[in-house]
Amino acid sequence: MNTISAAPASTAPFTAAHQRTVVDALRAVLPEQCVLFNEEDTRPYECDGLAAYAQLPMVVVLPLNEAHVIAVLKVCRDLSVRVVPRGAGTGLSGGALPIADGIVLSTARLNKIVKVDAYARTAVVQPGVRNLAISEAVASLGLYYAPDPSSQIACTIGGNVAENSGGVHCLKYGLTVHNVMRVRVVTIEGDVIELGNAALDAPGLDLLSVFVGSEGMLGIVTEVTVKLIPKPKLARVILASFDDVVKGGNAVASVIAAGIIPAGLEMMDKTSTRMVEPFVKAGYDIDAEAILLCESDGIPEEVEEEIARMTEVLKHSGATAIAVSQDEAERLKFWSGRKNAFPAAGRISPDYYCIDGTIPRRRLAEVLQGIAQMEVKYGLRCANVFHAGDGNLHPLILFDANQEGEFHRAELFGAEILEMCVAFGGTITGEHGVGLEKINQMCVQFSRAEMDAFLSVKRAFDPLSLLNPDKAIPTLQRCAEYGKMHVKRGMLKFPDLPRF
Amino acid sequence: MNTISAAPASTAPFTAAHQRTVVDALRAVLPEQCVLFNEEDTRPYECDGLAAYAQLPMVVVLPLNEAHVIAVLKVCRDLSVRVVPRGAGTGLSGGALPIADGIVLSTARLNKIVKVDAYARTAVVQPGVRNLAISEAVASLGLYYAPDPSSQIACTIGGNVAENSGGVHCLKYGLTVHNVMRVRVVTIEGDVIELGNAALDAPGLDLLSVFVGSEGMLGIVTEVTVKLIPKPKLARVILASFDDVVKGGNAVASVIAAGIIPAGLEMMDKTSTRMVEPFVKAGYDIDAEAILLCESDGIPEEVEEEIARMTEVLKHSGATAIAVSQDEAERLKFWSGRKNAFPAAGRISPDYYCIDGTIPRRRLAEVLQGIAQMEVKYGLRCANVFHAGDGNLHPLILFDANQEGEFHRAELFGAEILEMCVAFGGTITGEHGVGLEKINQMCVQFSRAEMDAFLSVKRAFDPLSLLNPDKAIPTLQRCAEYGKMHVKRGMLKFPDLPRF
Repeated sequence: MNTISAAPASTAPFTAAHQRTVVDALRAVLPEQCVLFNEEDTRPYECDGLAAYAQLPMVVVLPLNEAHVIAVLKVCRDLSVRVVPRGAGTGLSGGALPIADGIVLSTARLNKIVKVDAYARTAVVQPGVRNLAISEAVASLGLYYAPDPSSQIACTIGGNVAENSGGVHCLKYGLTVHNVMRVRVVTIEGDVIELGNAALDAPGLDLLSVFVGSEGMLGIVTEVTVKLIPKPKLARVILASFDDVVKGGNAVASVIAAGIIPAGLEMMDKTSTRMVEPFVKAGYDIDAEAILLCESDGIPEEVEEEIARMTEVLKHSGATAIAVSQDEAERLKFWSGRKNAFPAAGRISPDYYCIDGTIPRRRLAEVLQGIAQMEVKYGLRCANVFHAGDGNLHPLILFDANQEGEFHRAELFGAEILEMCVAFGGTITGEHGVGLEKINQMCVQFSRAEMDAFLSVKRAFDPLSLLNPDKAIPTLQRCAEYGKMHVKRGMLKFPDLPRF
Repeated sequence: MNTISAAPASTAPFTAAHQRTVVDALRAVLPEQCVLFNEEDTRPYECDGLAAYAQLPMVVVLPLNEAHVIAVLKVCRDLSVRVVPRGAGTGLSGGALPIADGIVLSTARLNKIVKVDAYARTAVVQPGVRNLAISEAVASLGLYYAPDPSSQIACTIGGNVAENSGGVHCLKYGLTVHNVMRVRVVTIEGDVIELGNAALDAPGLDLLSVFVGSEGMLGIVTEVTVKLIPKPKLARVILASFDDVVKGGNAVASVIAAGIIPAGLEMMDKTSTRMVEPFVKAGYDIDAEAILLCESDGIPEEVEEEIARMTEVLKHSGATAIAVSQDEAERLKFWSGRKNAFPAAGRISPDYYCIDGTIPRRRLAEVLQGIAQMEVKYGLRCANVFHAGDGNLHPLILFDANQEGEFHRAELFGAEILEMCVAFGGTITGEHGVGLEKINQMCVQFSRAEMDAFLSVKRAFDPLSLLNPDKAIPTLQRCAEYGKMHVKRGMLKFPDLPRF
């Protein structure tokens, strides 16, 4: 039976003398209040949104400017201290989990909006600026920043860059990587480099795209230039019901196949709508096996045409009921259920575990059937919420951490879902990153040669592996221990998992 | 006076015995007709579209399948032979210039369309498939492949991946990197890796984006999965005249500032229109100082609204005449002048040198003034053709290679244009790549730390530097010899250039 957890090998404890050396070196370059090391100060940094794993760091630093970041990294390099960067700590894959004898570098105080250029439609911001704060700052110009992760009230642009965050509108407007033009980065050597620029293309290797989504392993961002886009004049959303999840899944594929790129295309199963409706009162049909939310935005004529075409496709696909939002208030009401699905899970289960994998859209129905079988196998319920348009699944596995073994079963259930995604030709993360959570599944997704390519690029930036080590890219040793086969091209060489 | 040319240091000659060893090793793994080494066979490969530089290679190989590519690279690694990959040889920056004692690996015979998936809207093709052949193959499905470099009849998707090619429609539809989902690559170790996949996001580092535009320095592509998009229902183009290039430049910025992303937004100056109109009869106003072509595509209502809005912006910006294409034939006629600008240059000048830099759109007028001053300084005329919407300049420097010193002056003129682009906050390439041509200007564009980052990634893939060495990324020694300052953030630390 394979029971290897994603949990890191226990990190080395540290001596008080070593901590003192590091703290003194950091205090020599940072104001005193920017260096935290007492347990009551470091406790808030012990975990991120994947709260099942927690680890107190030796020290937390809160640099106030780029010069501080440079100074901190030089200290860390000189003393061989490992660094875990952290934005708002809302990440769901454990990417900001501290290391016992390492420091956490929080970008929370690098929170200035440096410049807004309405003419070029760009904003230059520091990494600690909250995602939503960018859109708020430019709202009066009729502009906004498109990527909208569920955590957008709290999460920061630096964290978004680290995880290549998405959101419900990324099918049409892209992920973070599609909306960031330039980053300013401090390397572990203390050099400042700029990756990307304002042009559509750039000479040299496209290191901006490598950096976005690199989960803090290549450098520390000190400035980000983001694209701003005009707010659409109108947005309307269709709420459609289906008496069969397979029909709902096929409807998603048919909308895309009809040549439509909806502004949002979400699916929820009956477990999810029944979980959320009593709480949010979004108007969902709780007798439907699945509901779809299909949004169109743009100029009014375009929206009307697209809504009409999507309505027709949904009817042909067997929708049993269709409602179209008649005004902005109703549009927001229809979305409110989807947007509150995660908090609603807390009403029916003590704990939940949000999974994040992708699949080819046409395999949606099969994947749902697979998850249903796993519910029986693991003895746990699962509510299915999907960014269906881009094939990004967010199954919520419901469990009770106080019941012996339930968390471990939930972990194995999640791992099996991700590995099924790979077996169906998909991937182990759509937008939450690999972090610590999915590090074993990287062994299933990639071949040894592909992993070597990742590791060699990591070493090119950080030869001593001081920056967020042991996250996102597994060592070959870890993969050997995990012992599962690399699966490729949707071939079903799906390994057996333990049964309970 | 700084007269360092982009020309490579003379490459080592080779002995007949060495050539025989390499040919024998290659013939042991490839059919005889796939290994060329007689001068009459290798001559066609001596240069690419930057014909000012030519160099016979020691050997040319034409693999027929991926197994051949793997075998060739293993031979090259074992014998330490350098490899220059080549698509159709239409590149304009010398990226496929051979090395005297190296081999050219042509992907011309890897030319199969492997699979078209109309449902997922993707095509899997081998690298030697021509750009236009993809669109032709899927035309009956109502789909096409968006990036449309001027050479699209001849250029191949493998070359497009190497150079991250653009085209007149890339403002709206993106460059190659935005339209490729996955590449299958053979590394210099002979490993096959796949970068990217069908999902919007992918776990691990985004090495697909690094690979696209890496100019053959990281590996050899054997398969590319491209996105296909639905052909727009309607396209119309506005042809607008201006009595002043500054007004034309400002009109471009105003269209974008109005929140419109045209399907194409091109500018030509009077030298260009007068060069092309007698030849093509596109209907251009040859008394105008500049003309703009602004295209809209989409559903008819959207096109009508966008055409109306752009017309209004252009009038406000001082257009002296405006015509809108009334049917598809007229639309193609309006475009024909722009599309034939390069061949038309041959009618008024024995030779021309096409430059490729980018600038922030708002600096267009200043850059035009700078180029006009350089025409006087270098005693050469320049016709200006721009992908204006994305700030990508294609000045055509007109010269006569048979006049002593004219080519050298044209080279220095081109270098000064590129360095002015950097000084104004732009870049040294928009879509043609760095290759050999712009390798000196890389020293002006990037800091030493940034170049180190590029070189370390290159080494991560190709530690022995066998794959297209000395292209695209200059050595630190070359930069030291070139001796120009790195310019950053549009600060005008623009170095003096020699005067004639």
